[in-house]
Amino acid sequence: MEPGSCGAAPGGMSVSAVLPAGGSGERLGGATPKQFCGVQGRPLVSYAVRAMERISWISDIIVVVSPEYIEAMKTIIEKYGHKRVTVVAGGITRHRSIFNGLKVFAEKEFSSHLLQKPEVVVIHDAVRPFVEEDIVSKVVMAAKEHGAAGAIRPLVSTVIASAADGCLDHSLERAKYRASEMPQAFLFDIIYEAYQQCTDYDLDYGTECLHLALKYCKTNAKLVEGTADLWKVTYMRDLYAAESIIKDNISQQVCVITNVKETLAQVGFLLPESLKSQVKVEAISVSLSKNDSHLQNIISGQCYNFVCVNVTHYGKVDFICSSSIILQVHVDISENSSFSIGMEDLTMIKKFARETKMKNILVYGLLIQNK
Amino acid sequence: MEPGSCGAAPGGMSVSAVLPAGGSGERLGGATPKQFCGVQGRPLVSYAVRAMERISWISDIIVVVSPEYIEAMKTIIEKYGHKRVTVVAGGITRHRSIFNGLKVFAEKEFSSHLLQKPEVVVIHDAVRPFVEEDIVSKVVMAAKEHGAAGAIRPLVSTVIASAADGCLDHSLERAKYRASEMPQAFLFDIIYEAYQQCTDYDLDYGTECLHLALKYCKTNAKLVEGTADLWKVTYMRDLYAAESIIKDNISQQVCVITNVKETLAQVGFLLPESLKSQVKVEAISVSLSKNDSHLQNIISGQCYNFVCVNVTHYGKVDFICSSSIILQVHVDISENSSFSIGMEDLTMIKKFARETKMKNILVYGLLIQNK
Repeated sequence: MEPGSCGAAPGGMSVSAVLPAGGSGERLGGATPKQFCGVQGRPLVSYAVRAMERISWISDIIVVVSPEYIEAMKTIIEKYGHKRVTVVAGGITRHRSIFNGLKVFAEKEFSSHLLQKPEVVVIHDAVRPFVEEDIVSKVVMAAKEHGAAGAIRPLVSTVIASAADGCLDHSLERAKYRASEMPQAFLFDIIYEAYQQCTDYDLDYGTECLHLALKYCKTNAKLVEGTADLWKVTYMRDLYAAESIIKDNISQQVCVITNVKETLAQVGFLLPESLKSQVKVEAISVSLSKNDSHLQNIISGQCYNFVCVNVTHYGKVDFICSSSIILQVHVDISENSSFSIGMEDLTMIKKFARETKMKNILVYGLLIQNK
Repeated sequence: MEPGSCGAAPGGMSVSAVLPAGGSGERLGGATPKQFCGVQGRPLVSYAVRAMERISWISDIIVVVSPEYIEAMKTIIEKYGHKRVTVVAGGITRHRSIFNGLKVFAEKEFSSHLLQKPEVVVIHDAVRPFVEEDIVSKVVMAAKEHGAAGAIRPLVSTVIASAADGCLDHSLERAKYRASEMPQAFLFDIIYEAYQQCTDYDLDYGTECLHLALKYCKTNAKLVEGTADLWKVTYMRDLYAAESIIKDNISQQVCVITNVKETLAQVGFLLPESLKSQVKVEAISVSLSKNDSHLQNIISGQCYNFVCVNVTHYGKVDFICSSSIILQVHVDISENSSFSIGMEDLTMIKKFARETKMKNILVYGLLIQNK
C-alpha cells in the first residue's frame, strides 16, 4: 500500500474509494465467491480494482474482503501489481463491510496506518468490473454538491408487490422507478455519520447506502443516469458475459514491448498502419534485464490481445507466459546477440509452444528474425 | 403450421402460447432486433420457439413479429423445422402485438385459419430462450386455478423512486418486491377480455399483462418463483451470456446418426460408456438417401456438440457442414461400399477440413474405418 499521490480530482477534492468484496456469491452457485472467480484467468475483483486504479485522482482504494480471503486478496494485489490498495477485513453483511472500509480513514485504533480522510468517498462493487472514469467523476461531482449521489439505470423488468397469499398486489409503473446501481459517492462525513448512527437492523438487513444517507443525514442523493456497463456480476451467466466483454476489449489493444528503439519505432508504426483503426497500439521500450519487474508489470497488469515482444534472449519467453493473454511474440535475434539458432533454441521454442497451448494462450505469430 | 396434436396438458387443459417477438431491441444497439441476432449461428427467437415446441402439450405457438420480419420468421421456421407455429404481424407496442397474437384464436376476420381457442394461453418472450417445461407447467396450473399467473424473480438491485429534481425520493425495501418475469399464463377468456377493455394508453405505454388482468378483470395473478434461467436478453452482454450457456448445454449432448444398425448399437453403447454421465447420448438411425431431409432436420434443428455420423459416402459430409456446431464425423468405409480411399477421397477430406475450419467448426474426430 502506498499513500495516494495522484492527478487532479474533479473540483480539486480529495477522493478515495471503498470496494466491498466480502460477498459469498450464493446466487452464482459454486464455492468461490464471484469476486474471486477467474475471468480470462484473472480474478474479477482485480478488474474492478484496476478500473479504480486507472483513475489518477483516486488516492486510496480500500478493498474489504472476508477475513478468510485477506491473504488471497494480498496475493492478487501483488500478482497484478495493484497500487494504492489497502485490504480490510469485512463484517458479516454488506453494510458492516462498507463501514469497516470507512473506518480506515477515521478510527486510529482500527488500523495501524490511518489513511488520510478524503473529502469524498466513492463506494463501488468489486463485481462491477466495467466502470469508467466518466461516471465516477459525475457521481463524485454530484456528491460534492448534494452530499450523496448514485448511478441509476432503467428497470429491465416490471417490479411488482406481492400480497401475503402469494398473489399480485400491484405492479409499479416502470417509468417512475429506477434500479440503484454503483458507483455511489458521498461526502465522507455524511456517509460516516450515517453508518455511526444506523441501527443493527440497518447494518444486518439493509443494502442501500443512499437510503442510510437519507434516513440518518436527511441527504437526498443526486441520481445520475449511468451506462449499461455498470451491471453487476450476479449469476453464472454474468461471468460468461464478463469474459466475452473482456475478450472483446483486449482484442482492441496491441502492446509492443522492445529493448531496441529502432524496432519499436518500426513495429509501432507498421502495426497501426496495417491494422488501421481496428486496434489501439501502445509501444513501450524497456530494458530487458534478467529480473525486469517493469515488463512483468506491463504484461500482468494490462490486458492486451497482442503483445509484440522483441527479445534477444529466449529466457524472456518464460515469464511472458505468466500472462494469460499474450498472442504475438516476436523474437528478434539481432547480430549483437550472443545467441544463434541452434538445437537448444529450437527446443526452447517447442517448449514455449507446448506451454502456451497448455495454458490456452494462442500464439498469434512467432516471428524469429535472425539478422 | 400444423394444428396442434400433442401430449397431455397439465390438468387436461388445452394450452397454446403467444411469443411476442416484435421488439426493436434498441437497448441492445445495432440494427438487428435482438430476437433475430444469431447465437451460435441460429437466431435467438428459434431457441425460444424450440423451448415451447419441446413441450408436447402446447398446441399452437403464435410468434408475433413486426410486419417487415414476417418473411424472415417464416424462413427461420422452415430452416429449423419448427412445428405448430403460426406467424402473426405485430402492432407498434408490446401490448398491441400480444393482442394481435390472441386474436388469432378469437376473431375469424383476423386470420384465414382460425385456430382453436385454448383454455389457457401462455405468454412468453422470444428473448428468453432458456425456459423449462417445469416452470411453464407451474404457471399454467396456477392460471387455471387463479385465472392468471406469472413467474417472478428476486430483485438484483434496489429499486428507487426519484423526485422531480432528479434526487432520491425513497428506496423500496427489496424483500417486499419482485421482478415480474416470463412465462405468464392466463385463462384465455380473462386475458382476452382485459385486452378488449383496456385503453389506448394501456396498449401504448403499458407492458405488464398481469396488470391488465388485475385492472380489467379483477384477477390477482398467482406469482410463481422462477429459476435464474428465466432472464431476458436485453443488452449485448446478455447475448454473450446466451451464447456461452448454449455452448455449455450443447457440449452435454451427443447425437449418433447412422444407417448401419449394428454400428449404431455399438457406438450408442460405447459412447455413453466412455463418457459416463457427462453427456446425454441420443442415437438415431436414418436411411442416408441422397436428399435426406430428415437427417438435415436433425442436424440443423438440434444443437449437439458431437454429431457422430456413420456414412458410406463422402457426399454426405457436405450437408453435415451446414450445421454450425461441433461435429464428430465418423466416416465408415464398409466392405459393401463401392468406394475405396483414393486420391479423390483424400481431396474430399482435405476440402472438408478446410471448410469446417472456415466455418469455425471444430472437427472433434474424423475417424475413417476401412473394413
